[in-house]
Amino acid sequence: MKAPVTISLHELAERLGGELRGDGELLIGGVAGLDQAGPGELAFLAHRKYRPKLRETRAGAVILSPAEVEHCPVAAVVVTNPQLAWARALAVLYPEHRPAPGVAPSAVVAPGAEIDPSAHLGPCVVVESGARIGAGVVLGPGCFVGREATIGEGSRLLANVTLYHDCHIGRNCLIHAGTVIGSDGFGLANDGGRWVHIPQIGRVIVGDDVEMGANCAIDRGALGDTVIEEGVKLDNQVHVAHNVHIGAHTAIAGCVGIAGSTRIGAHCAVGGAAAITGHIEIADGVQIGGMAMVTRSIREAGAWASGLPAQRQAEWRRAVVRFRNIDELVKRVEELERRLQEQENKED
Amino acid sequence: MKAPVTISLHELAERLGGELRGDGELLIGGVAGLDQAGPGELAFLAHRKYRPKLRETRAGAVILSPAEVEHCPVAAVVVTNPQLAWARALAVLYPEHRPAPGVAPSAVVAPGAEIDPSAHLGPCVVVESGARIGAGVVLGPGCFVGREATIGEGSRLLANVTLYHDCHIGRNCLIHAGTVIGSDGFGLANDGGRWVHIPQIGRVIVGDDVEMGANCAIDRGALGDTVIEEGVKLDNQVHVAHNVHIGAHTAIAGCVGIAGSTRIGAHCAVGGAAAITGHIEIADGVQIGGMAMVTRSIREAGAWASGLPAQRQAEWRRAVVRFRNIDELVKRVEELERRLQEQENKED
Amino acid sequence: MKAPVTISLHELAERLGGELRGDGELLIGGVAGLDQAGPGELAFLAHRKYRPKLRETRAGAVILSPAEVEHCPVAAVVVTNPQLAWARALAVLYPEHRPAPGVAPSAVVAPGAEIDPSAHLGPCVVVESGARIGAGVVLGPGCFVGREATIGEGSRLLANVTLYHDCHIGRNCLIHAGTVIGSDGFGLANDGGRWVHIPQIGRVIVGDDVEMGANCAIDRGALGDTVIEEGVKLDNQVHVAHNVHIGAHTAIAGCVGIAGSTRIGAHCAVGGAAAITGHIEIADGVQIGGMAMVTRSIREAGAWASGLPAQRQAEWRRAVVRFRNIDELVKRVEELERRLQEQENKED
Repeated sequence: MKAPVTISLHELAERLGGELRGDGELLIGGVAGLDQAGPGELAFLAHRKYRPKLRETRAGAVILSPAEVEHCPVAAVVVTNPQLAWARALAVLYPEHRPAPGVAPSAVVAPGAEIDPSAHLGPCVVVESGARIGAGVVLGPGCFVGREATIGEGSRLLANVTLYHDCHIGRNCLIHAGTVIGSDGFGLANDGGRWVHIPQIGRVIVGDDVEMGANCAIDRGALGDTVIEEGVKLDNQVHVAHNVHIGAHTAIAGCVGIAGSTRIGAHCAVGGAAAITGHIEIADGVQIGGMAMVTRSIREAGAWASGLPAQRQAEWRRAVVRFRNIDELVKRVEELERRLQEQENKED
Repeated sequence: MKAPVTISLHELAERLGGELRGDGELLIGGVAGLDQAGPGELAFLAHRKYRPKLRETRAGAVILSPAEVEHCPVAAVVVTNPQLAWARALAVLYPEHRPAPGVAPSAVVAPGAEIDPSAHLGPCVVVESGARIGAGVVLGPGCFVGREATIGEGSRLLANVTLYHDCHIGRNCLIHAGTVIGSDGFGLANDGGRWVHIPQIGRVIVGDDVEMGANCAIDRGALGDTVIEEGVKLDNQVHVAHNVHIGAHTAIAGCVGIAGSTRIGAHCAVGGAAAITGHIEIADGVQIGGMAMVTRSIREAGAWASGLPAQRQAEWRRAVVRFRNIDELVKRVEELERRLQEQENKED
Repeated sequence: MKAPVTISLHELAERLGGELRGDGELLIGGVAGLDQAGPGELAFLAHRKYRPKLRETRAGAVILSPAEVEHCPVAAVVVTNPQLAWARALAVLYPEHRPAPGVAPSAVVAPGAEIDPSAHLGPCVVVESGARIGAGVVLGPGCFVGREATIGEGSRLLANVTLYHDCHIGRNCLIHAGTVIGSDGFGLANDGGRWVHIPQIGRVIVGDDVEMGANCAIDRGALGDTVIEEGVKLDNQVHVAHNVHIGAHTAIAGCVGIAGSTRIGAHCAVGGAAAITGHIEIADGVQIGGMAMVTRSIREAGAWASGLPAQRQAEWRRAVVRFRNIDELVKRVEELERRLQEQENKED
């Protein structure tokens, strides 16, 4: 895939902090997979299981680890973490689009909002009073920033993002379209059968280098704040309820829901479509499998999972019936144990 | 947390209909948790398990039930339902922000739409012809109201909300950002392997005092209407398919999906991430656990649940294999029963 | 329900390619269910189980299959696929609302974007440079189309839809409000515990006649494209990760999540709230049940399912404990088998 930037392999290797093997004058002007890359293109070896593809690659150069150099038929950039070098190479070859500073004529900025002159506010952006938009911030079309909200330098809200009043986004965050930050938590008091809204007076505090995918929903705290620490990465459609606390550098895949007041540690990984109940604690370094149902605190690092993988519908139906009767099955086994014991006693 | 309003404890107790204990002249200017509140702040006792915190609180005053008065070292407002009184106290101390009446210059109102002069239409709001916006309604930035849709007095659509044509929102509703009301139901006819869209000609009818969280999606009826009765509360990312009927004062937590034509009773509670199949009926007063899979009608009030809580991954893997073989296990037990019976018969 | 169009039964039958029974001069001006339709209204018989309702219907006319004609007390349009004919009849009686061509004054179109004169761009639409909007396209209020994105003729993006740069929508697609197409995939490299964003340089390619419900999120490819083939139908809140490939005429119900690089065949059906893991393949013609957890490739057509239907909470709690101990139960059965064998051996 053709890149907007062309760079010599020599310079690329230097920028990646990698060791160059082969012709440093080679010009790299794009990237592709190992089996599709052509002469001027860069590829990378993600895992040694793809070594056969490496042996046959026609790429201009390959990013790989020291152990793979001997299998590489073309030029190479040798690094200890090929995936990380690949991420950086892509950032060099396909530099992020940063729209020019300035406020679009159709943007609506309330008096009393502070907009750094280097920020970009796209068409139909709305910023309320008291909001502070930092240097280099990008607010894409249709984004809304409520009163007194703040966005740290370099952060980007891509399109139709809603940031409610008083919430805070750190520096260099990336928030994808349709995401909502700061909606009310689901706080209800019961008045003889009718639900009464409990005003949600906390905020959402998002640290630096946080990413959120599309159509996430992050509720503000009821009392106190919802906190997403630095370096957290959320995929699409993640729901974070009020007063949740997500520790630094935790990654949460798509469609995960986290109920209120739960505290998730740092460096955790949560698989897609998992659901985590409220008022529990997950330790640092916990990995939770896709679609897992987390109902209790997890006190130590390690991998947790639940759920039953899909099987043929007919078998599944039978298994469901068996599961429903599992209590009875246990009783039948107990009865067998009792009768057999009786038999054995007679023998003696 | 400092409140925009300061009120004497005397007056607050009166407004909450509670009994005052202690110095009525005390000024309350904020709220906090029992263990964090200082002299001018209000706290509340949610549950008697927090009684130890109550005994040590340094709050100015505490909202609590009669049974707890004797354990309270500071002033108190005594009520029968402390959580409800707390909700009301917050509403007094942190009054809801209501933007001024008027239509923002960048809002686009089609000829033939009726906008009450006391309504607020924020920047980039779009209202189509024939829509009727009631007294005191707030339409936040980027909201869209389709032709002939109506919104009852006092309702608020916060930002980037989409209300499709012909749908109806009752009075005093609160709809959070990104929510979509009135999209087409998933109605498809099959034409030799190709799906053909079935026009969805029904509406969504939302009663009074309904709340919806962020990024919900409520489909219009195929024929006839999708109905959400008064007082229903939906959390974030709830999906309601066509022709669903949700009874009054039912609360539905985040990430729940409800398939088409299902009828949920009044005063139900549905836990987060539950999935409810189509064309079934749930009685009044049913409680459904988080992540439950509801595949059949539930005819009586009571608590229902399903799903397997997360366990260590290694144990889970083993259990999954056992579950797959549960049918075989039952057969082994049957065989044991037969053989043991034979043994016992021989004895006789 | 009154329709905006009135048509003679004769003409309707002709347009549906059906056989007319009864008075062709009868005027049809609306539709309703079999048991609610009145003299000027059309109904249809979806399934023979509703035959009792057919026998008592007071509809003006009924769409039905040849086998049902004898049970119909009123006029009829006889067709081989009543549901399909019903979809077409609705399209005749309730023609889709198509706003007039033109660009709203508040829409913002960048220089270098190509907008077909027959396209409609509603208020607050934003189209970036290099985008191409085809004939008859409708972009509803608040939609955003990024640079170099293209939309084929006749497609409609209803409101607050975000289409990222370089993505492609085919012809005659229908995209509901709040849906996001082209957000970054969840691609992360780990740098000593910190996550580094991997630039996502692929696109989303959507074929012709695709429908997406409200608040879906479709990520662009990391390298190469995310592909949604022609005729695919997605319900609300479907999450499609990077480099997923969905085959033609597959239908996916609400709240489904599909992880990265998974390939789903043509003519599949995926039930609501199912979760499909990454890097697997699902064959053509596979049906996946609601809330199923798909963890491995499925190589042949057929129905698959998983999950445990809800039961009374008390029973569920017991069953969960039994499930946790299923390993021990298997061991108890093995022990019984061993002991009984011993007994039987003694007998010999």
